[in-house]
Amino acid sequence: MTAPVPVDVDLVGVTDTSSVPVPDPLTVNGVPAWRKKLAHMPTGVAAASSSDMFKTPICYTKPKAKRFEHHLSLEAKSRTSSTLKGAARYLSNPDLISLGGGLPSSEYFPIESMDIKVPTPPGFSPEATRESGTVLHAGKHDIREGASLYDLEIALNYGQATGAAPLLRFVTEHTEIIHSPAYSDWHCTLTAGSTYAWDSALRIFCERGDYILMEEYTFASAVETATPLGVKVAGIPMDEQGLLPEAMDDILSNWDSNAREGARKPHVLYTIPTGQNPTGATQSAERRRAVYKVAQKHDLIIIEDEPYYFLQMQPYTSGDSTPVPPPSNHEEFIKSLVPSFLSMDVDGRVVRLESFSKVISPGTRVGWIVASEQIVERFIRAFEVSSQNPSGISQLTLYKLLDEHWGHSGYLDWLINLRMSYTARRDSLVHACEQHLPREIAHWEAPAAGMFHWIEIDWRKHPGYAAGKTHAAIEEEIFLSAVDEGVLLSRGNWFKPDHSTSQEKMFFRATFAAATAEKIDVAISRFGQTLRTQFGL
Amino acid sequence: MTAPVPVDVDLVGVTDTSSVPVPDPLTVNGVPAWRKKLAHMPTGVAAASSSDMFKTPICYTKPKAKRFEHHLSLEAKSRTSSTLKGAARYLSNPDLISLGGGLPSSEYFPIESMDIKVPTPPGFSPEATRESGTVLHAGKHDIREGASLYDLEIALNYGQATGAAPLLRFVTEHTEIIHSPAYSDWHCTLTAGSTYAWDSALRIFCERGDYILMEEYTFASAVETATPLGVKVAGIPMDEQGLLPEAMDDILSNWDSNAREGARKPHVLYTIPTGQNPTGATQSAERRRAVYKVAQKHDLIIIEDEPYYFLQMQPYTSGDSTPVPPPSNHEEFIKSLVPSFLSMDVDGRVVRLESFSKVISPGTRVGWIVASEQIVERFIRAFEVSSQNPSGISQLTLYKLLDEHWGHSGYLDWLINLRMSYTARRDSLVHACEQHLPREIAHWEAPAAGMFHWIEIDWRKHPGYAAGKTHAAIEEEIFLSAVDEGVLLSRGNWFKPDHSTSQEKMFFRATFAAATAEKIDVAISRFGQTLRTQFGL
Repeated sequence: MTAPVPVDVDLVGVTDTSSVPVPDPLTVNGVPAWRKKLAHMPTGVAAASSSDMFKTPICYTKPKAKRFEHHLSLEAKSRTSSTLKGAARYLSNPDLISLGGGLPSSEYFPIESMDIKVPTPPGFSPEATRESGTVLHAGKHDIREGASLYDLEIALNYGQATGAAPLLRFVTEHTEIIHSPAYSDWHCTLTAGSTYAWDSALRIFCERGDYILMEEYTFASAVETATPLGVKVAGIPMDEQGLLPEAMDDILSNWDSNAREGARKPHVLYTIPTGQNPTGATQSAERRRAVYKVAQKHDLIIIEDEPYYFLQMQPYTSGDSTPVPPPSNHEEFIKSLVPSFLSMDVDGRVVRLESFSKVISPGTRVGWIVASEQIVERFIRAFEVSSQNPSGISQLTLYKLLDEHWGHSGYLDWLINLRMSYTARRDSLVHACEQHLPREIAHWEAPAAGMFHWIEIDWRKHPGYAAGKTHAAIEEEIFLSAVDEGVLLSRGNWFKPDHSTSQEKMFFRATFAAATAEKIDVAISRFGQTLRTQFGL
Repeated sequence: MTAPVPVDVDLVGVTDTSSVPVPDPLTVNGVPAWRKKLAHMPTGVAAASSSDMFKTPICYTKPKAKRFEHHLSLEAKSRTSSTLKGAARYLSNPDLISLGGGLPSSEYFPIESMDIKVPTPPGFSPEATRESGTVLHAGKHDIREGASLYDLEIALNYGQATGAAPLLRFVTEHTEIIHSPAYSDWHCTLTAGSTYAWDSALRIFCERGDYILMEEYTFASAVETATPLGVKVAGIPMDEQGLLPEAMDDILSNWDSNAREGARKPHVLYTIPTGQNPTGATQSAERRRAVYKVAQKHDLIIIEDEPYYFLQMQPYTSGDSTPVPPPSNHEEFIKSLVPSFLSMDVDGRVVRLESFSKVISPGTRVGWIVASEQIVERFIRAFEVSSQNPSGISQLTLYKLLDEHWGHSGYLDWLINLRMSYTARRDSLVHACEQHLPREIAHWEAPAAGMFHWIEIDWRKHPGYAAGKTHAAIEEEIFLSAVDEGVLLSRGNWFKPDHSTSQEKMFFRATFAAATAEKIDVAISRFGQTLRTQFGL
């Protein structure tokens, strides 16, 4: 990170803070005043920027992150910065004419302007948007004309791996408002989506032959990213709150390299702490603190994959009870969120993978990560020679919507609206289960976050069990009967990366993200019928 | 590739073609009639598609590509297809309700419509676009409403690694029209930019410790992508036409593993055949055929990196001569292009990296590759667990512009326009060199393609040479004096990956892509002044 820190605030860089009053935490309402103090927003073609330009003074009152060189892979350690980008340091002379870089001229970018129609808060529905939506305009030379901090001339050209400064500012502020990281030198960088960030993380921290820790049941694609790299999975037993810290401690404390093809003790934990996929489990604050302690004890890097963080829902109330009223303001909303690993990470051992996929749109292929400067820098070096940066058109779209139009306040309104929508969806599904599934053999907890409902089936009561059929055979039989009955659920087995442990239980995953309430009801009633037929009830 | 081939043309799948008349090659004008014969365009969320849906019958009259398993890395060989995507095969029953996948509902995508203003051919300039440009509209439900084959509902959701079918169709047709590959089972897939495709290619074909072949001087970032993976470079000597096939043969025939830390003989050639970066060299058709022969002899994979293919310019005419008139029609334009490696690749050993960066915009982060089905399939498996797919917003923008608005005809008009613009820019630079540089010590060939002009300096005439200064010291001295004089050129040394060979010559690279003709003239006159001072002329 060679970018300067152009803020005119005395506290930046102060190390002895004993005599200095502690600055205020950043709030949604505090953003405009804070932005006025910022000396400068980089707006040139591929202009360098860093989160340090946008973090508020309170960040610098905290201690620095630890160093984690010893966790880096050979690949990550080998990365140097770009030769050609190094030439940029000669460009400070304004009279200099550069025939150096191979950037195309914006006159050859055949897009003169872009307009997007988006919701005007609080009218967030598609109907309201069609009627009262706002049209946001981006021209090619808005920056030059003073109309914006970001425009098509910049978005359509090459950019920095960190992303465009105006969008990096937004996610940096958002991170500070929501998580208020516990150490000073945290940084953000945009990513070309969270899956890509996870692929990069594996290459930055792991070597072929390594084991990583994951929840016993986890996102199958995350495993499939690791497997071809020669990275294997040790699954951690879970309960309704997700992974069990004692079980993780046990695995690590008793790690036997010989029994694991000579693999060293795992040093990376991949976890989906909120609305876990596939189980829907959400780790409580207490659980997270216990997991973090074990991570400290065994010196783990925690990869916190958090696409569902803002799909935390209202407390579940069954059929006839009164629903819990929505959060009445932003503070209440933020307070209602379970604290992230990032927020409790005093060491800088957490890499938080952030995504817009579940809260704005997967098709933007824009996410971001938050980690210590040292670790983010290694990601940036990797991105520079691979994805380069997320799509400029996506970045411009997000900037126009999130920053220029909604601002942090409108974005939180949107997230509260989403929370209430997902609460209603979740309730439809759980109500349908209460109504249609045979309680003798089907058990569940209403999920507190995410898109997924995890249904346990008492497979030992299946007639096939007495007849000696395997877990896998019975699971498949139920799955295929459900398909015949006209409903597709995901098999628990699909999400189990570590086949060294036995399958005591049987699960099916249902999502409430996509189908309508009516379809969900029909689907679950079909599944109930399947179970009754299969189990002879 | 499990996608079916839904074309109602008898020739598909025919193996004995002796009694069948050879079908016509695809031309720009033939596209509309051919499209009418296509049975089906996949338009659903994350719908699968493949180039086989869009290739015309002539493709299937050609022999199949060879198999290249033996070139794949352990990582590439280990990839399997996605567990969760496998569940899609149950979705054929239209009455089935899926609670399986975790796709968000499009009602939560807060972009209702997008409008972009783009040039209407032949008014390609920014001025003309502002005055007479066309506004292209994309709504959320255009597909459902019959208004388009691609819309925001699809673009904003998850997608396939191959890209959206309508854009995949365009690049497949474009590939067939321009290159007409010499074997039958070639495929395209979109990529999240060409740099990312190159990073993926290295991981697909190379192991740590491998050497790859590159031009003696090459794109520094391409080397920096390889180095952290433990992949080293053997540089191939070049002349004005780029790499020398005899020299390549020599390196391969005399490969000494012991002298190369035990590395096996290189099996991958990375080349920029057209408008090479940094030298500006373009390999003639004859040169390419010779290189291809050596690649066959030594069983090489050729990675053909071709961002500058359509920056092939008009023949250079010095100061006072009459410029060569532009191509008078599309056929003449296509015929004027030097044939690609892809077009002569009978074996399927070429991986062509295509980019929109130099011809549309780098900020889209959308490119594509062309290779045999076997190789493209390995790329797709890699993308699925990394980038997933290029930005949907970028893809939609490109589709609207290239397919719905311009069509192949308008796109070729745009490329001809670009050719003429770059010809003018190149001419400005070369004219300025003719006027301002001291011919006693500065030599060059006018580049036939690309963005770069490569100027050789007779460094042994520098007073420092007699005084015993090194090549590097003299190059740096000239570079820094030029910066002092107010012009930045790139040092040849920055582009030399293989430091095992000595530097006989000295070069500086100047680009004509970005600065105006006036600025180019000033810049080169400053460089002339620098050289005169430095060399005491």
